[in-house]
This record gives sequence, C-alpha cells and structure tokens, in this order.
Amino acid sequence: MSTHTAEIDVRFRDIDAMGHVNNAVYATYVEQARTLYFRDVLDADISRVSTVLASLSLDFRRSVELTDGTVTVTSDVAEIGRSSVTMTHEVRADGDVAAEAEATLVSLDPDTETPTPIPKDYRSAMETYHGL
Amino acid sequence: MSTHTAEIDVRFRDIDAMGHVNNAVYATYVEQARTLYFRDVLDADISRVSTVLASLSLDFRRSVELTDGTVTVTSDVAEIGRSSVTMTHEVRADGDVAAEAEATLVSLDPDTETPTPIPKDYRSAMETYHGL
Amino acid sequence: MSTHTAEIDVRFRDIDAMGHVNNAVYATYVEQARTLYFRDVLDADISRVSTVLASLSLDFRRSVELTDGTVTVTSDVAEIGRSSVTMTHEVRADGDVAAEAEATLVSLDPDTETPTPIPKDYRSAMETYHGL
Amino acid sequence: MSTHTAEIDVRFRDIDAMGHVNNAVYATYVEQARTLYFRDVLDADISRVSTVLASLSLDFRRSVELTDGTVTVTSDVAEIGRSSVTMTHEVRADGDVAAEAEATLVSLDPDTETPTPIPKDYRSAMETYHGL
Repeated sequence: MSTHTAEIDVRFRDIDAMGHVNNAVYATYVEQARTLYFRDVLDADISRVSTVLASLSLDFRRSVELTDGTVTVTSDVAEIGRSSVTMTHEVRADGDVAAEAEATLVSLDPDTETPTPIPKDYRSAMETYHGL
Repeated sequence: MSTHTAEIDVRFRDIDAMGHVNNAVYATYVEQARTLYFRDVLDADISRVSTVLASLSLDFRRSVELTDGTVTVTSDVAEIGRSSVTMTHEVRADGDVAAEAEATLVSLDPDTETPTPIPKDYRSAMETYHGL
Repeated sequence: MSTHTAEIDVRFRDIDAMGHVNNAVYATYVEQARTLYFRDVLDADISRVSTVLASLSLDFRRSVELTDGTVTVTSDVAEIGRSSVTMTHEVRADGDVAAEAEATLVSLDPDTETPTPIPKDYRSAMETYHGL
Repeated sequence: MSTHTAEIDVRFRDIDAMGHVNNAVYATYVEQARTLYFRDVLDADISRVSTVLASLSLDFRRSVELTDGTVTVTSDVAEIGRSSVTMTHEVRADGDVAAEAEATLVSLDPDTETPTPIPKDYRSAMETYHGL
C-alpha cells in the first residue's frame, strides 16, 4: 500500500510578481507528479495514453518560495470507477503541506473520444500499487 | 447587474503535447480574467493588492485548440464574506463552455499576512457592479 | 512591402519575481507573432507546418510591465535561403522598442526530418507580402 | 577551473504541440542554470541581485523530448567587463548538445537602474571558480 512521491524542483520561472510560486504552477506540479506516476506505476508515457482531465481542485495552504528549492508531490488513488480515476495529491514544501489537490481523469477511446473502460493492466497496476 | 467579461488570446505556447490548451493554462486564463476584473471593476493593479488565492476548482467541459483563437472568461461574484470573496468563471471558446471555475480569494493584512476585512471601496465596487 | 504586426496582451503570468515580463516570455511573444504570421501571410497553421527553429537571439532594450497592457511584435523577413528563412522582430511597448529579435527557421522534410526546400507557395507568399 | 553544471528535470508542461521542448523553455532552462549558478558560485539569491539580462542567443542543435527526463546545463564565464558578464551555456540531453546559449548580464545600481560595476565579491567569486 504505497503512496507515490515525486520530487519537483522549483524554478525561478515558477515565481510570479508576488514573489511566490504562481497558482497555475501548482497545476503543473500536480501534472508532473501524474506524469511520473504514469511512468512509475503504469509503466506508460502519459503523452501516449488516451486520457483527459475532467476536473482539478486546489486548496492552497501556504506559499512556496524559490528558496524552498523543491516540492514533494504525493499521489494517491481515492476512487477507481469504470472509466474514471480520482487522484488526491499533497504538495509539500519543507515538510509543510503547501496545497492539497484532487484530480479526476477519464479514460477515452482514442477514436471516438468518448469515455471507455480503464485498460485492465492500468487498473490492476493501480490496485496492486495502492493495495486497493 | 453585470458579468465581467475578458477576451484572452490563445497562444501557441498554451497548447501542450496533446494538441489542446494545457489544464494549468486554464488557471492562467482565470487569473488573467481576475487581473482585468481588478483593473476594470476595482480600479486596482492586482500586483499591488494584498490578497491570496485560497482555492481554485476547474471543471473541464471541452478542449480548446489554437484555432479557437480566443477564449472569453466571465467573472461573477458568488459570495462576499468578511475577508473573502468567491468568484465563479466560465471559460468559453467559440460559444461553448470549455470550463467552469470557482476561485476563493482572501484579503490579507500586508504586515501580518493574516485575513483582514475586504477594503470598503472594493466591497462597494463589487456590490455596485454585480447588483448585490 | 509590408511588415507584419501582432498585438499581444501581457498576462499577469508573464511577469516574474523582478516585476517585469520574464526574458523567456519574449521568446513566446516572438513565437506568437510567428504563429500569426503563418496564419496571416502563409495561410497556414504553424502546428502543421514541418519547420524547426534553428536559432533565436534577443536583445533586451527596456523592461515591459503588466501596466503596459499589450506589446506589438513586428515580423520582417531578412533573408530567404533555399531551406531557411531569417526573420527579424521588434517587440514594442508603449511606443518604445523593448526588444529586438532574430529567428532562423528551417523547413524540414516531415519524413526524414532533414532540411528541405521551402514550399513554393510559402516562398512566393513571403516575397509578395514583403515586396522582396 | 570549474564549469558549473545544473541538472534540470524536463516537465510535461515544457513540451509543446510539436512534441518537443518548446524554444522559450530553453531560455527558462538557461535562467534556471543561472539561478543555481548565483546560489552555488556567488552565494546569492538571484531574485535579490540587481541585474538585468541584456541579451540572449540560443542555437538549437537537436530537440529534447519528455523521455529525455533531464537536461544538463553548463555555465561558463566568457568575459567579465566592468559592469557586464557574458556567460556561455550548453544544454545537453542524453549526452548530446541540444542547444548552445550565450547570455549577457548587466549589473545595475538598484536606485538609478543604470549600469554599475560588478560587486567585488561576485567578481572574485567568479574569477576563483573559473580560474580566470
């Protein structure tokens, strides 16, 4: 029963005029964690998997600064449906939770672009990894 | 009783490897709509207003392509509290709703960085504009 | 003998921790001007044209701020070779030249990904537009 | 006589519609290498140093893909003038040179925003590090 963890380096470009990591960059951090999750857990290149993000919510707890250096983004599976997966994430900086996120992904038929059952090998890889 | 509307040009850089506007860019579109809302409704430069984004949720309805050219982002006020405002947004492309968003902003005391009542002139400007 | 001109809105996200438009964003502005040039002059979707950027140089003259609102990016053709085109650009804000840029594009054979002659209709469209 | 080296992870968001790292992102990679150079060699937070980028040139040698995972960016000092420094960089992916870059930075007086001599401790730190 594992939680996937990604270390992401904070870039100067991630900081906005307020001096903190910009809110949209948290979506990029979560996306990057998902990219590494697909690589590590599903053994898949996310660019080649026919999936779409249906929703994303972010709750910001504290700001992240350039001097934090890196953030750690955890990825868990909250729910696996027939064609969708809801993942939960924490973005941590220097031990603190900087943000919490929830993202729902939908598996698409590449031809019709309509929802399709999650491929069996992905489903079982997630179940095994998270002990579901 | 107005809804604020911002026209935002889609950039080539907004498109990701999937060929659509990247999910994090929707957060940037909503932020840009908020920036223009501050300018137009509050007569304020958002870079100089002491506020923080507490949460953001995005529901994606359809993808946006480079050939859509522009998106229109509406901004409404769903709720004004003592120190926070919840705004709702629609991102529309070519007449369709491409995404719906909700963002909660908190007014901060610039010295203590703790929540502080929304400045009166901002509150009344929002109430007047939206007919609240 | 025309110079192509693109109006690009400055986004809050374009500003970095220094309070100015970030240097990498100038490359995005020039790319967006090129995107509109392809659309307007070549009647082409840049995403579907097999071309690659060989070089880009940027000389920064003055900073651009969020309050500048928009920048204007001009596009001229400095040289058309067999398989490459060198374009020159000015990024202007509020009447001033904020940056000058030069970009060399190479036409690629989509199968071999090696340089190939510029398609004749693109060459003649550029020659006609710029009076070359 | 050292060359500074920065490892930078390629993000999904760095990839554009062509499926490669976008040209503007190379400017971000070079900026991030500079950020780490300031931290490692000058013991300085680049956000707090009064400096401006005067020019940047990029020569693209081969594309970088998400599957490259990381790029390595080297930083050398080509020339130290009275108030400016010219740095040269290589962006390498999987052992190949993906791009070469040259950037000129100018030291600014924070009050007048005009060029000012490079602080002595920065000059001597660079000379010592690079064996100049």
